[in-house]
Amino acid sequence: MSIPVIIDCDPGHDDVFALWLAAGHPSLDLLAVTTVGGNVPLEHTSRNARVALTVAGVTDVPVAAGAAGPLARELSTAEWIHGENGLGGPELPEPAFGLDPRGATALMADVLAEASEPVAVVATGPITNVAVLLRDRPEVAPRIREIVWMGGSTERGNVTPYAEFNAWVDPEALDLVLRSGIPFTMVGLNVTHRALVTAEVRARLAALGTRTSAFGDELLDFFCRTNDEVFGLPDGPLHDPVAVAVLADPGCVDVVRTRLDIELLGGETVGATVVDLDGMLAREPNAGVAVGLDVNRFWGLVEEAIGRLA
Amino acid sequence: MSIPVIIDCDPGHDDVFALWLAAGHPSLDLLAVTTVGGNVPLEHTSRNARVALTVAGVTDVPVAAGAAGPLARELSTAEWIHGENGLGGPELPEPAFGLDPRGATALMADVLAEASEPVAVVATGPITNVAVLLRDRPEVAPRIREIVWMGGSTERGNVTPYAEFNAWVDPEALDLVLRSGIPFTMVGLNVTHRALVTAEVRARLAALGTRTSAFGDELLDFFCRTNDEVFGLPDGPLHDPVAVAVLADPGCVDVVRTRLDIELLGGETVGATVVDLDGMLAREPNAGVAVGLDVNRFWGLVEEAIGRLA
Amino acid sequence: MSIPVIIDCDPGHDDVFALWLAAGHPSLDLLAVTTVGGNVPLEHTSRNARVALTVAGVTDVPVAAGAAGPLARELSTAEWIHGENGLGGPELPEPAFGLDPRGATALMADVLAEASEPVAVVATGPITNVAVLLRDRPEVAPRIREIVWMGGSTERGNVTPYAEFNAWVDPEALDLVLRSGIPFTMVGLNVTHRALVTAEVRARLAALGTRTSAFGDELLDFFCRTNDEVFGLPDGPLHDPVAVAVLADPGCVDVVRTRLDIELLGGETVGATVVDLDGMLAREPNAGVAVGLDVNRFWGLVEEAIGRLA
Amino acid sequence: MSIPVIIDCDPGHDDVFALWLAAGHPSLDLLAVTTVGGNVPLEHTSRNARVALTVAGVTDVPVAAGAAGPLARELSTAEWIHGENGLGGPELPEPAFGLDPRGATALMADVLAEASEPVAVVATGPITNVAVLLRDRPEVAPRIREIVWMGGSTERGNVTPYAEFNAWVDPEALDLVLRSGIPFTMVGLNVTHRALVTAEVRARLAALGTRTSAFGDELLDFFCRTNDEVFGLPDGPLHDPVAVAVLADPGCVDVVRTRLDIELLGGETVGATVVDLDGMLAREPNAGVAVGLDVNRFWGLVEEAIGRLA
Repeated sequence: MSIPVIIDCDPGHDDVFALWLAAGHPSLDLLAVTTVGGNVPLEHTSRNARVALTVAGVTDVPVAAGAAGPLARELSTAEWIHGENGLGGPELPEPAFGLDPRGATALMADVLAEASEPVAVVATGPITNVAVLLRDRPEVAPRIREIVWMGGSTERGNVTPYAEFNAWVDPEALDLVLRSGIPFTMVGLNVTHRALVTAEVRARLAALGTRTSAFGDELLDFFCRTNDEVFGLPDGPLHDPVAVAVLADPGCVDVVRTRLDIELLGGETVGATVVDLDGMLAREPNAGVAVGLDVNRFWGLVEEAIGRLA
Repeated sequence: MSIPVIIDCDPGHDDVFALWLAAGHPSLDLLAVTTVGGNVPLEHTSRNARVALTVAGVTDVPVAAGAAGPLARELSTAEWIHGENGLGGPELPEPAFGLDPRGATALMADVLAEASEPVAVVATGPITNVAVLLRDRPEVAPRIREIVWMGGSTERGNVTPYAEFNAWVDPEALDLVLRSGIPFTMVGLNVTHRALVTAEVRARLAALGTRTSAFGDELLDFFCRTNDEVFGLPDGPLHDPVAVAVLADPGCVDVVRTRLDIELLGGETVGATVVDLDGMLAREPNAGVAVGLDVNRFWGLVEEAIGRLA
Repeated sequence: MSIPVIIDCDPGHDDVFALWLAAGHPSLDLLAVTTVGGNVPLEHTSRNARVALTVAGVTDVPVAAGAAGPLARELSTAEWIHGENGLGGPELPEPAFGLDPRGATALMADVLAEASEPVAVVATGPITNVAVLLRDRPEVAPRIREIVWMGGSTERGNVTPYAEFNAWVDPEALDLVLRSGIPFTMVGLNVTHRALVTAEVRARLAALGTRTSAFGDELLDFFCRTNDEVFGLPDGPLHDPVAVAVLADPGCVDVVRTRLDIELLGGETVGATVVDLDGMLAREPNAGVAVGLDVNRFWGLVEEAIGRLA
Repeated sequence: MSIPVIIDCDPGHDDVFALWLAAGHPSLDLLAVTTVGGNVPLEHTSRNARVALTVAGVTDVPVAAGAAGPLARELSTAEWIHGENGLGGPELPEPAFGLDPRGATALMADVLAEASEPVAVVATGPITNVAVLLRDRPEVAPRIREIVWMGGSTERGNVTPYAEFNAWVDPEALDLVLRSGIPFTMVGLNVTHRALVTAEVRARLAALGTRTSAFGDELLDFFCRTNDEVFGLPDGPLHDPVAVAVLADPGCVDVVRTRLDIELLGGETVGATVVDLDGMLAREPNAGVAVGLDVNRFWGLVEEAIGRLA
C-alpha cells in the first residue's frame, strides 16, 4: 500500500527531483503540493512546482502557494545556486494548470481532512507553511502521519558555519513544528552531501531517454556548475529527494531517534540544528535524524520513479 | 634557538603531557606555568601542575595560581573524566615546591616584561587567565609573541553538540582574547581527536622506562578508562599537548588562517567556536585554526620530550 | 494604543524621571520595573525605584531586584553625583510596597510571556539585567519588541575620555545584548547632554504644584548642584528620561540606523561605544543611535506625564 | 629670533603646505626634512617632499628618507584622498636635488647635534621616524626643544570612529614618543577640521600669483574634490600646516596642558588618542593638546609664508 503524501517545497533544482520521486514512485501517493518562498521568491517557486509536474505529465495534483517569507524574519533567497528564476538551465514550458485558489494552508487542511488515513508531509524548503498550518489549523494535526524535512545538519552548515539554508531562513517555524509533537525526521546536510550528482549518476538518468529525464539533465548540468563555482563541489549534492526517499524506501536512509533543538537566538549560530547524538544534554528524544544513506539504492529509487513519468 | 613559553593550564591528565612536552622538548624554553579552575577546581589544578613538574624533575619553573572561575559565568568542572582531584590514577607525590606568591597575572606580566624576546603563551584550559592579563595589564600585550589554545572545534563539541569544554566554560574570555589582535591559534577537537592514546602509543611511552613515563602510564590508564565509559572512546584523545606541538614543531600540525568567532548568547550553542573555513561570512580572518595533525610525528615529539625528563 | 513597557533602572535622580515618564505618559503602559546595581548599590536602587513610584501614587506595578553587579567586572558606583543613598536631596518616604519575590529575570520573563503583544524594554542603567535575561531565558527574546538604552556616546564620555558610565560599568552585558539581534536603540550622552535642567525647566515642573513635582524639584536641586561641582555643569543633564521619550514620542528624538560596537578590551578605552556614523568600517548596521533631540518637546512630555501623577 | 625646526612628513597635499609654512615663515628656520611612509608609500613621500621644496625654490634643505612603515604593524596608506602618487592634481616637476644619503635618523641626529640651540620637530605623518630616533639615538633627545605632531583627535576620528589616520597607522610610535618626556603638543582633528579650504581661502592664496601659489591651487583643487567624495567635505580641512602654526605663531592655536594616552590594544579603538580634558583619570598631565584655532590668523600665516617663496 502506498503512503499518501503532501510535498511542501521551494523549487529549486533539487526540489524538482523530490517532486518527481514523490509523483513517480509506486510506494507514494502524491496528494498535493504546496510552495513557499525560499530558494527563490514565492512567485517563482509556485510556478516552478507546476513546471516540474507539467514536464512529468502530472497535471491532476493540486498546487497551492503558501507563505512568501518566514514567520518572523526577512526572506533570504539563494539565486546564486538556482539562478534568477530558481530553475536555471532548461527552457521552462508554460505550466499546464493554474494554482489552487485555496492557498497552501487550506489546501493542506482539506487534503488532510479528506484523506482516508493520516498523510505524510515532506518539506524540502524553509518549513514555514507547515508551521502556519499547525498554528492556524491545529485541528488537523492528528491527521498528519509524520513530517520529514530536508534541512539542518548534525555537523557544519552551508550558509553560516553551523547553519543550513532551510533552517537558517525560518528557524522559528522549525521550532514550532518540533514543539507540535508530530513525528518528525530531519534529513540534513550530513546525509544529503552523500547524494552527489556524479557523472555516472547523470549518465544513468539521461539513459532513461524520456522528456522528464532530458529536462532533468539540463537542470543537473546547471546545478552542478553553480555548486562547483560557489562551493567547489562539481558533483552537486541533490538534497531534497533524500527526504522523500525516507518515506519511499525506509531502508535507504539510516535514521536515529535523538534530541533536536533549533538555535533561535545566537549571535553567530542562528539556525543551527543542535542534534544531541551523544545524549550529552540528557533531554528527551524528540525527533528522528538521518545519519546514513545507501547511495546506490537512493539513485535507484530516483531512476525508478522518473522512469515511470512522461 | 628555542621559543620562550608560558603554559596556562588546568591539569587534568592531558595538561600534564602538555607540561612535559613544554618542559622537555629542546625547541621550547618553559619560563612559567599558571593555573586556572577548569577540569577541576583551582586548588587541585594548582597542586597538580606542581605534581607534574615535580615528577619530571623540573623544580625551577615558577607556578602561580590564577582565576578560580570564568569571567562571567559559574565554573563547571569535569570530574567525570579526570577524577575528583583531577589526576585520577596514580598515587600523587607531594609537590617539591610551593606556588609563586605573585599569582598568575603578575607572574605572567613579570615574565613577559623581563624576557629578552616576545614569549608564546599556550593555554590548555578555559582561557580566563589570559583574558584577565590582557584586561588588567594591557601594556604587556606587545610582549606576547602569540597565543596557542587547546579548545573549541570546527565541527561538533564534547559538552554540548556544538561546544567544546574549554570554550564553553569561559566563552567571554575567548572573545576578549580574540579581540586583542594578538596572533592566535586554536587547536580544537577536530584535530585533537586524532591524538588517540592507542595501545601502541602507550607501549611506546612506557618503554622509556623512566619515572616520568611510569607516572604517565598510570595517568593514561585512568584517562582511557573514563573516556571509554563517558564517550565510548577507549583510545582517549590526548588534547592538550597538541597545542604545545604547534610551537615545538610547526610541521606537525596543519593550521589555516580563517575567521573564528565565539558564540556568547545562543540558547543552545553558547561556547560554539564558529570557524568560517569556507569564507561564507566574508569577514576578515582573525585566527589560525588547526585542521590537520601528523599523528606519528606528534607522538614522536611527546616521546622525545618525556625521554629528556627524569 | 499604548506601548507595553518594562523599565530596568538604577535610581539615581534621572531614573526617577524616567519612571515617572513611563508611568504617567498616556502612550506607554508600564508593566514592570526591575533594578540593577549601578549609580548606587542594588539595595538602594531597589528601594529608590519603589520610593519613586510611591511618591507618584503608582503602587500596582511590580518592582523586582536584579543583578547586584556587572557580568564580568567589579561594580563601580557614582555616589559623587547621586549621594550615598542614590537619591540625595529630599526626605525619602517609606515605599508603599515590597519587592516582587520572583526577582528581575523571572519577573521580566513572566511579564513578557503573559503580555498580549511584544513588550519594549527601556534600560537606564548598566544593561546587566537584560543580558542575564537573554542568556538565561532565551525563549522570551521574541517577546521583546525592542530595547532602548540610555548609555554610551557617539563622542566623548563622562567616566573616561571615551566611555559613558553605564557602558563602562558593564560593557560585556551591552555586547551580549547587541549580539541578540533584538532591535536596539542607544540614547547616549551626545543627545542627553541637551536635556539640560535649566532654571526655566525647573520652574515649569515646579509650577505643576503636585506632590510628585515637589519631590522632583528637591531631586533636581541636589542633582544640579553635584553636576556643577563634578562636571561644572550647573544645568545638569537629565539623561534617563530621554530613553523613555524615544518610545513615548518618537518624533522627539532623531535616531539613525548605524553600526554600534562596544570596546571590551582597550587599555584606555574599555566601555567606549564605537558608533560608525560615517560608515568607515563597512559593517552591517546593527542598532539605532540617537543623534538629535527636540528639547522643548521632550520637556513637554515630562511635564505632561508628571502632571498625570499624584 | 627664529626657531630652528625639522619637519618630518609624508606628503600628501597638506604636508606640502606645512613644508611651505616652515620654509617661508620668518619665525622659523627649516634645517632639515625627513619622510615617512604614511599617506602614500615612502618612495612617493620622499620624492614629494623634494618636489614641494623645488617648486618653492628651496633647494638647500636636506631631505632624507626614513621608515617605510610603522614600528609594529603593516602600513596602511590613503591613496583615496591623495591620489596614487600622493600629490594628485598638478603635473609634478623633477626634484632639483637628491635624497640625503644619511637617511632620516642620522640626518636628524646630526642636525640636532650641530645646532646651536635645541631644535623643534614637527611631525605631520605617522610619528615613526621620531620614535626610531629616540629609540636608536637617545643621546640626542636633550637637543629636541619640543615635538609638535599633527594627529589624533579629542573627539571622533577619520579612519575608525575614534581613531585619526596618523595615530592609527603607528600608535606604538606615538606611545614611545609620549613616554620620552620631551615636551609634546598634539594638533588633532578637533582643531584641524576648522582649517577649511573655503573658496575664499583658495582665492586669497591664488591671488599671490606666484609659481608656488599656482602649484598649491592645483593641489587644493584635487584635495577638495577627493575630500568631498570621501567625507562629504567640499572645503577640505588642511590639517598639517596647523601643527607648524603652533611654532610659527603660538597665539594662533589654543593649547591646553592635559593627559594624553594612546590606545594600543582595543578591539575597536586602536589608535584612539585618549585626551583627559576633564581630568577624570587623575593622572599627571603629559602633553599639550590643541583645542582652538584662530582661523583667519592661521590662513594669514600660510599666505605670508607662501608669499615669501618662489
